Amino acid sequence: MKKSFLLTLITLFTFSLLQAQPSQVEIVDPPFWWTQMPVNELQLQLYGDELGHYRATVDYPEVTITKQLAVDSPNYLFLYFDISDEALAGNLPIVLTRGDEEITLNYELKTRETTEGRNMGFDASDLIYLMMPDRFANGDPSNDTIEGMREAADRSNPERRQGGDIQGVIDQLDYLENLGMTAIWFTPMFENDMSPEYGAYHGYAATDLYKVDRRYGSNELYKELVDRVHQRDMKVIMDMIHNHVGDKHWWMNDWPTKDWFHSWDEYGQTNFRGTVGSDPYASEYDRDKLLNGWFVPEMPDLNQNNELLADYLIQNTLWWIEYSGIDGIRMDTYVYPDQKYMARWSKEVLTAYPNFNIVGEAWVENVPNESYWQYDAPGVDDGYDSELPSVTDFPLSFAVRQGLNEEFSWANGLSKIYETIAQDRLYADPMKNVIFLDNHDMGRIYETLGKDEDLFKIAYMFLMTTRGIPQVYYGTELMMAHENRGGDDEAWRQTMPGGWPDDDRSVFTEGGRTEQENEIIDYITQLNQWRKDAVAIHEGKLVHFIPENNTYVYFRVHDEQTVMVVLNAGEEAATLNRDRFAEILDAFEVGVDVLSGQEVDVTQDFEITANTAGVWELR
Amino acid sequence: MKKSFLLTLITLFTFSLLQAQPSQVEIVDPPFWWTQMPVNELQLQLYGDELGHYRATVDYPEVTITKQLAVDSPNYLFLYFDISDEALAGNLPIVLTRGDEEITLNYELKTRETTEGRNMGFDASDLIYLMMPDRFANGDPSNDTIEGMREAADRSNPERRQGGDIQGVIDQLDYLENLGMTAIWFTPMFENDMSPEYGAYHGYAATDLYKVDRRYGSNELYKELVDRVHQRDMKVIMDMIHNHVGDKHWWMNDWPTKDWFHSWDEYGQTNFRGTVGSDPYASEYDRDKLLNGWFVPEMPDLNQNNELLADYLIQNTLWWIEYSGIDGIRMDTYVYPDQKYMARWSKEVLTAYPNFNIVGEAWVENVPNESYWQYDAPGVDDGYDSELPSVTDFPLSFAVRQGLNEEFSWANGLSKIYETIAQDRLYADPMKNVIFLDNHDMGRIYETLGKDEDLFKIAYMFLMTTRGIPQVYYGTELMMAHENRGGDDEAWRQTMPGGWPDDDRSVFTEGGRTEQENEIIDYITQLNQWRKDAVAIHEGKLVHFIPENNTYVYFRVHDEQTVMVVLNAGEEAATLNRDRFAEILDAFEVGVDVLSGQEVDVTQDFEITANTAGVWELR
Repeated sequence: MKKSFLLTLITLFTFSLLQAQPSQVEIVDPPFWWTQMPVNELQLQLYGDELGHYRATVDYPEVTITKQLAVDSPNYLFLYFDISDEALAGNLPIVLTRGDEEITLNYELKTRETTEGRNMGFDASDLIYLMMPDRFANGDPSNDTIEGMREAADRSNPERRQGGDIQGVIDQLDYLENLGMTAIWFTPMFENDMSPEYGAYHGYAATDLYKVDRRYGSNELYKELVDRVHQRDMKVIMDMIHNHVGDKHWWMNDWPTKDWFHSWDEYGQTNFRGTVGSDPYASEYDRDKLLNGWFVPEMPDLNQNNELLADYLIQNTLWWIEYSGIDGIRMDTYVYPDQKYMARWSKEVLTAYPNFNIVGEAWVENVPNESYWQYDAPGVDDGYDSELPSVTDFPLSFAVRQGLNEEFSWANGLSKIYETIAQDRLYADPMKNVIFLDNHDMGRIYETLGKDEDLFKIAYMFLMTTRGIPQVYYGTELMMAHENRGGDDEAWRQTMPGGWPDDDRSVFTEGGRTEQENEIIDYITQLNQWRKDAVAIHEGKLVHFIPENNTYVYFRVHDEQTVMVVLNAGEEAATLNRDRFAEILDAFEVGVDVLSGQEVDVTQDFEITANTAGVWELR
Repeated sequence: MKKSFLLTLITLFTFSLLQAQPSQVEIVDPPFWWTQMPVNELQLQLYGDELGHYRATVDYPEVTITKQLAVDSPNYLFLYFDISDEALAGNLPIVLTRGDEEITLNYELKTRETTEGRNMGFDASDLIYLMMPDRFANGDPSNDTIEGMREAADRSNPERRQGGDIQGVIDQLDYLENLGMTAIWFTPMFENDMSPEYGAYHGYAATDLYKVDRRYGSNELYKELVDRVHQRDMKVIMDMIHNHVGDKHWWMNDWPTKDWFHSWDEYGQTNFRGTVGSDPYASEYDRDKLLNGWFVPEMPDLNQNNELLADYLIQNTLWWIEYSGIDGIRMDTYVYPDQKYMARWSKEVLTAYPNFNIVGEAWVENVPNESYWQYDAPGVDDGYDSELPSVTDFPLSFAVRQGLNEEFSWANGLSKIYETIAQDRLYADPMKNVIFLDNHDMGRIYETLGKDEDLFKIAYMFLMTTRGIPQVYYGTELMMAHENRGGDDEAWRQTMPGGWPDDDRSVFTEGGRTEQENEIIDYITQLNQWRKDAVAIHEGKLVHFIPENNTYVYFRVHDEQTVMVVLNAGEEAATLNRDRFAEILDAFEVGVDVLSGQEVDVTQDFEITANTAGVWELR
């Protein structure tokens, strides 16, 4: 029933097979698979009336059923296959029997796609653009309302869907490429067929993990988007959520097992206290609340300790990677699911796709807690390893947001940034941290900095030149402030002017932008484009100096390039005593301002204007 | 010249030997040594007019000279001996020759003392009383002024010496034992023959590393103090400083080598930025400033990279341990000397005296930086290991001082303590941390908490029941506030009433104390005495719960004892939902209040009065 749309979709390319699909089998997850995958095991979750009473057999060369399981609900059958490396693509007939009854399910084993440039991963040489597809551009108004889906676009209410979609993104890829972005992280595009009252435009309340929401487009269009992004040598990062689904997920009507979800009655809402995850003294009570409590009442908490579910989720990830060609994953709420499961997931995904990368959202307050979630975390002696390459660097984000908003002192102002970075020994590899000024869950940086353009530029300069993988929130390139039309987070989730047919201007064109927007987009574009080839930023060693007078000086040092950065957030010009930096500057004569091209003599003291930031290549 | 006092001292017990001592040899460090020491090597630093032109020979069974060195100054001769395990105690004649000239120096090799209970170390079962000997009690007014020493006691000026001394401490050992203290840390008692203007009553500006300041007593009296403390099953922690000496140290008149001290002209004052020590990105400039800059202009910075000095300092430590029988060391300014040297020092001291313990003062702001200085620090990948067992837990101290002074929130109030403790995975062994509410360099806790007795008791309860080795600053047992008579730090370094003959009352007696003082000293004494045998506190696992309504609940769990602690810093009584703590409480029926003896039924919810702290043994 609920999966009927997917079946329609599948029909598009497996017409002949589906014709033969028996009606008892309502849902088959995953809908198809491939031969010669990095893993030989395949779990099929079959759903349909009393399917648990059937048993399956196959007769296909190099394919065997290794395990089949009926569960609490009589309507599920889980089948585990071994698909050997020698198995050939084709139609795999699965025969289901119940007494005399016999059903044949035709399951497609595809040949893997071998296009170049898929699954490329991402690293510090990248620049990630984070967007909410509902809020970026509405390229196809025909999908704003979908018959049979619970919520239609409503431009009058910022807490509802606005109608942005995949076609809108495709239409603006020039814009993103010209900006100097090299990767796009989309908030989730899974089907979120939730009640309008809930407001699931953000995408974190999936109702089907194998479907792109039709209001964004389709699985095929998503795949096309990835292909088109790849053609520009850019990358796609998919947002996933294994902690929870939406309460309208079809599982909720018929829990496969009694422990598929954690019980709301037992655990209630999570305590949101990420600290508990890395705390050696945490009580079981607090830990259970963190891990098993629901994120919100509309998001049932998945129990990844259920092995069938764990397998399902991991396989779902492999399916999307293989199907779409995405380059990386941003895993939502990394701190909230079962820790061992998340580690297993990360390890198995990266083993299967070694060039891939994953960043986990660990919203915690300080470096000790953040660093716990990156692989090889120091000081973890219970054998746990998150296996996660990249973490969201919240502590650094907080340091920038606070540090640029306060008086300079030993610990405050730019000292806060310095003191945060100085804790980097705790990260297994801080160069893999995803760094950011803001995101869809935080106030926009320009607003946070009191709409001070100078501070904004300092913040952006820092983001582009310190260690890590920078991520820019959509609209930041325009120095967007908040737009308070109601709703909590919606003030910073506004739509991009020009993304909707009836918008009266378009920020995607120079003529549609204000003078200030053009000025800042030029600043940002120039920095972004320079950063693309700045090996010192991608790989160079960071050497920094204790901030003085709210001026923070650091260098990025690489065999092929050395770069000097000065952030002066003070109200007065700073004279830099050149001898303080002699250990670096002795090897150079001039610094070339990356933005203006102007040279500065680095054999002598030099001055930095108040409230400015600069980056110089040293020669 | 400057060592003439020491020679007088030595005369007291090596009279016959000294009679033969040649006058050219002004100073011999160490003044004597022992056979069968844990190390076979002995370095002698000989100082005297042109001694560098002499060469030494010995003829003594099982003793050989392995190396002799003349240095930049012609007036030093460094001799290295190998004293085999078979060497016998006695007078070792050292023959110094220069051409035809010959001098014989008689050097004593003593037999080691074998008294029980020396060098016992200290751990979480201890309770350390920190005192400044100049400010505690003046047991011998005859040493207030010492002929030939630069500063005399001046009771009218809190920035000058007050006259406290070792005899004063000896006189009050009953008081300290009755309080339930098990160890005493004295700020340094090395000779500090500094200018009165500098104000070296604190003891951190040593002018001779082999002498107790005569205004405190003598080396012999210090040793007697240690013996007397040991007789009470208590311990002594000696304060040492290897980062610097005072500018009136006799070395300053005649630097042994040009690099014995770091150059003030080159490095100036330290930047005091402890962060630099553990920062993977620190510049050489900042690192040099931290390590090689002087602490203050009156304290020349020792260059521990000079191998002769390094050997001298390590040996000086071994000498004091062996001579006095002390149980532990508090090493001052651990972050400021050469890191590799400090590690070598710590390792060699602990190898020689395995039961010993050392706490290093690492005054840094956060757990990542503090944990770096404890042995086996996580995330240190350059092979460095501090080898230091205990660190001063400044981050926890700051958390208590701030947390009890602010409104409760997610991160503030008691949450600040919880969040700090929750970072403990970064410490190799947080049970070895020395924890404290205040010390001689910080405002007194009672003053800091706005003279709020309830908050004070909560803070003290926390100190006595959380993990680590608690340290109490003298006067805290009386809830001392500040006494502002001038001077910066002097407000919290006042003298103990009754410690001076002309004081009009004595806090050392019940009758001399105010009602409030008696009340608080009873509270503290009762807790301290209970803690002495509380194995759950000494060794038990800590399990804590997310604070709610500014109420922080934790347990200390041990096979033999389980303890519940509740800190309610809120303005309202807290009802504890018993089921939240079921994982611990299920095994018990009642909690016995350690202070009142009253029982509480822990099978049901129970209430905790506003602004109180309690500790219950569970049964």
